[in-house]
Amino acid sequence: MADDLKGKRVAILATDGVEQIELTAPREAIEQAGATTDLVAPHGGTIQGMNHRDKGDQLKVDVEISKARPEDYDALALPGGVVNGDHLRMDERSVEFVKRIGSQGTPIGVICHGGWILIEAGLVRGKTLTSYPSLKTDMRNAGATWVDEEVHVDHGLVSSRRPDDLQAFCPKLVEEIAEGRHEQKRAA
Amino acid sequence: MADDLKGKRVAILATDGVEQIELTAPREAIEQAGATTDLVAPHGGTIQGMNHRDKGDQLKVDVEISKARPEDYDALALPGGVVNGDHLRMDERSVEFVKRIGSQGTPIGVICHGGWILIEAGLVRGKTLTSYPSLKTDMRNAGATWVDEEVHVDHGLVSSRRPDDLQAFCPKLVEEIAEGRHEQKRAA
Repeated sequence: MADDLKGKRVAILATDGVEQIELTAPREAIEQAGATTDLVAPHGGTIQGMNHRDKGDQLKVDVEISKARPEDYDALALPGGVVNGDHLRMDERSVEFVKRIGSQGTPIGVICHGGWILIEAGLVRGKTLTSYPSLKTDMRNAGATWVDEEVHVDHGLVSSRRPDDLQAFCPKLVEEIAEGRHEQKRAA
Repeated sequence: MADDLKGKRVAILATDGVEQIELTAPREAIEQAGATTDLVAPHGGTIQGMNHRDKGDQLKVDVEISKARPEDYDALALPGGVVNGDHLRMDERSVEFVKRIGSQGTPIGVICHGGWILIEAGLVRGKTLTSYPSLKTDMRNAGATWVDEEVHVDHGLVSSRRPDDLQAFCPKLVEEIAEGRHEQKRAA
């Protein structure tokens, strides 16, 4: 398990208002499995983490979105937080980054309000996934099948609803990142 | 102008996290035009107003949604605030209330993130409206035509994008409430 992701690089895309535990818990799981991670954000410096309604830590940004190259990454993680999800989908470069990651068949982990950026990137049509329940109707209107499960996996897309689901989400995400891109699997 | 809305009763539906000025400014305009208003919320007591990211006032709830009757109101105002909009759409009774208000042809004013509850109530299909820009894709996926205007009116549905638009939003909303229900106009 400890070396399953050795040599892999994972982007975690977030902005101010991110639900902190939904960023730090997957990050820890991914790094413990041997991968390196980059916190990618629309701006440099730090982003403001949230512990639900209270301010959490300032989290150091590793790569500004203007310098992030989708082809450098073996997976993408999209944490939640209502303000994070709401703002990230309005950042055109972030949406384009996610779109290109998705078009590569790269595994994506998404939790809570992180799903809005997948809607914005046009990546949920025909997919089965979960999210924070408030996104259910937006997901369905965008062409997804929405399920109420602690974690759901659909062709490399790993989704969960909320912080309580992290214990199920993190190992599934690590497993999908280990499996790699879906095109590669089909080609093998 | 001062008596245009005399005898009318307007529901303002909101919950914790409401963008305070988007509740208080329309309320003031409506009351100055002679109507009475009720702050309707999923729970009794008070709701937490927000001044963007900072906490504002505790706002007194007049009517709990469980006791609110759509037929008692001549209009509905839906303020924004990202947390308000996100939570309100998950409250089934609030969604049902909005659905019934909409089915009566009652004028509705909506601003910013208030639009999510209209999506949830299935009231945007075929309508032209605006909202906070982050809702644009959700609105389009729900069957609306989204426009980037400070205020837009479509058959009694008055919509604006953000607090900066309030000066245009408030008088238009008062005007539409004065005109009354759209069925009534057609019947006249």
